Amino acid sequence: MPEFLHLLPPDEARKILFAALPDPAPDSETVETLHALGRVSAEDVRAPHPLPSFPRSAVDGYAVRAADTFGASESLPAYLTLTGDVPMGAAPNFTLQAGQAALIHTGGMLPEGADAVIMLEYTQTVEAGCAPIREIEIVRPAAPGENVLCVGEDVAEGQVVLPRGRLIRPAEIGGLMALGLGSLRVAKKPRVGILSSGDEVVPPEVEPRPGQVRDVNSYSLSALVIQAGGEAVRYGILPDRLDAIQSVARRALDECDLVVLTAGSSASARDLTAAAIQSLGQPGVLAHGVNVRPGKPTILGVCNGRAVIGLPGNPVSALVIAGLFVVPLIERLLGLPPRRPCPSVKARLTINVPSQAGREDWIAVRLIADGSGWLAEPIFAKSNLIFSLAAADGLVRIPPDATGLSADEMVSVEGLFATPSCGGV
Amino acid sequence: MPEFLHLLPPDEARKILFAALPDPAPDSETVETLHALGRVSAEDVRAPHPLPSFPRSAVDGYAVRAADTFGASESLPAYLTLTGDVPMGAAPNFTLQAGQAALIHTGGMLPEGADAVIMLEYTQTVEAGCAPIREIEIVRPAAPGENVLCVGEDVAEGQVVLPRGRLIRPAEIGGLMALGLGSLRVAKKPRVGILSSGDEVVPPEVEPRPGQVRDVNSYSLSALVIQAGGEAVRYGILPDRLDAIQSVARRALDECDLVVLTAGSSASARDLTAAAIQSLGQPGVLAHGVNVRPGKPTILGVCNGRAVIGLPGNPVSALVIAGLFVVPLIERLLGLPPRRPCPSVKARLTINVPSQAGREDWIAVRLIADGSGWLAEPIFAKSNLIFSLAAADGLVRIPPDATGLSADEMVSVEGLFATPSCGGV
Repeated sequence: MPEFLHLLPPDEARKILFAALPDPAPDSETVETLHALGRVSAEDVRAPHPLPSFPRSAVDGYAVRAADTFGASESLPAYLTLTGDVPMGAAPNFTLQAGQAALIHTGGMLPEGADAVIMLEYTQTVEAGCAPIREIEIVRPAAPGENVLCVGEDVAEGQVVLPRGRLIRPAEIGGLMALGLGSLRVAKKPRVGILSSGDEVVPPEVEPRPGQVRDVNSYSLSALVIQAGGEAVRYGILPDRLDAIQSVARRALDECDLVVLTAGSSASARDLTAAAIQSLGQPGVLAHGVNVRPGKPTILGVCNGRAVIGLPGNPVSALVIAGLFVVPLIERLLGLPPRRPCPSVKARLTINVPSQAGREDWIAVRLIADGSGWLAEPIFAKSNLIFSLAAADGLVRIPPDATGLSADEMVSVEGLFATPSCGGV
Repeated sequence: MPEFLHLLPPDEARKILFAALPDPAPDSETVETLHALGRVSAEDVRAPHPLPSFPRSAVDGYAVRAADTFGASESLPAYLTLTGDVPMGAAPNFTLQAGQAALIHTGGMLPEGADAVIMLEYTQTVEAGCAPIREIEIVRPAAPGENVLCVGEDVAEGQVVLPRGRLIRPAEIGGLMALGLGSLRVAKKPRVGILSSGDEVVPPEVEPRPGQVRDVNSYSLSALVIQAGGEAVRYGILPDRLDAIQSVARRALDECDLVVLTAGSSASARDLTAAAIQSLGQPGVLAHGVNVRPGKPTILGVCNGRAVIGLPGNPVSALVIAGLFVVPLIERLLGLPPRRPCPSVKARLTINVPSQAGREDWIAVRLIADGSGWLAEPIFAKSNLIFSLAAADGLVRIPPDATGLSADEMVSVEGLFATPSCGGV
């Protein structure tokens, strides 16, 4: 059970953890496309037919043979005979001959023979007394293919339109529907077993007696797991006894893809967690302690090919550390690519924040509107105080090689954004 | 039906739209705290009791009377009599007298009489042959309150722990559970009616004939609405006939909080949408056209106190414009504050992107890892091509007052992030 003399920073600890795990081979299931929002594709999806499946006009105008318009200008217009209207939603029942044009709406199907569409703006109808309009004047040439969506211009038949390991967003759902794909294979939600331990911990519905506290971590972690795309399986509150923790953790390891234990916060409780993880399977505990604040007493383990994480008992530490280790494990189990862009809010720090060199710090901040930008105001509170995190808009990372951040420095605020906003498409 | 000579940019158009709407008074409902993730609080939640509810130790150590340790140092330690252990999960059954210390674990309840905890590191037990340890040596003074979480230090009784209009994240769920609050009032999900129109549009399960296309917008917009916290109500596909659109739109307006029509993409179809909105109620159409690309043919209306938005028929335009107008309307109906931080990814643009002054442009980009940062590579495609958006990682805004963006410029990529990632807490 290694206790590093120099504790590893989270990034390196995560590398060691991931390296000890087998390559993820996500279980998959079929879901309706409509219900696939936020899921992750489990196989490459190919287009069963091209899109568009027929040549379409991209504008309102006249379908023409481009060659008939070559050289047309304001001073020397081309004149074409109006041969008909293209109906919406049906194939035109005529072929466009040389010298002819047909009225077409955006999205209409090009008639046979036409190879371009000239916009209404560049045409004039030629009035001939009371007779119906039979001729149009064109003051600009059209290039072949101009204002036409060709067959397969969006996707070709057989093209991979959705590779495996891709998050399903509204655009993907629309695209699959355009191809008539009403269902798809997605990664099953990884099952994350959550165990709370602590002789002082009681369920939230119980009125705590003096000395007792309600279970916070089982629920905040369940929410985090769900938010990250996993399924939370709660195994309840266990007493601070090795045999009790061992037997329930073993069951959780059998039933889940990943197990999270939140120990009581005392040193002896943490040692129990480490001993339990060590006993569950090979290689056991990989790191006992990580150089991060909050969350130093984190325990990282792998038992028989599955990750088992011992989180600190303090609710703030537990959530921050779960964000650093449990969320990436869930994303890995889902088959998402390892390096993905991480959205953040740029903000100006209001005060100096010192930090110890070598240690990674995560500072909870409140964001305050400041002109067109944001100020990040650190919330200093002991890491046991869950409402200090509820009051925060996000977290700022102080990297291990820094000795702090300076007032007025621009920082990236990450983390606590639970929904897509700002016109998330 | 105003058609502005100078079309308004989206921000100004949104202001006009919001100003024509009554103040939102979200309907609320009670949900279990466990299922409140991503919902929005509909009333101020107050703490029914303080947290912690008893004085707790923040460390492993000895509960002491601080006064007994004043002046203690390595050279002149204080000696205290060990009087007992504080059990976890119960009130100590003794009172600490002057000159006494009691072993206490992190989270343990301070005994009556104690006012500080001295960490184990600053103590030594005094061995006295085979006798049980009865005395400890203290080499550092403790200040009153040191290493103690006082009653109410997290929250005081009656304090607002969750104001109305707040998004419920994992931290909020944990905090509510800590207070034993198993349910809360949240804003009802705003009902968003979605109507597709177009003679060429068929449902996704139908094999389109030549000239027909499958309905994309009803489904991509439904997903966007759900992602934004709303409930999507689809009213199906309507023919390009005013009476048909009017009668279904009127029903949708009765049944929903907000109605979205996606017209066919031709000019005549757009005019039908505008006429339908104008006929639904006062004041009717507020803007016919917005100075944005994609999405210029957007129609904004308010009918009898509810917003009715006419989206362009092109699937890419429809999604981008829904992000700019429909998502903010949903957030407003949920009671979320109007100005909220918008997470984005900073990336370096790969090429010059020109834009027309006065017009706001939204450019789809792919993000490519580049060292420790990201490159944003624009995806140029006609706005009818839904898979151009599915291939994108996000959108970059070119503001109305810019004439484009330059290669190597740092840009903010927003939008297409459908899940919390990066250790979202």
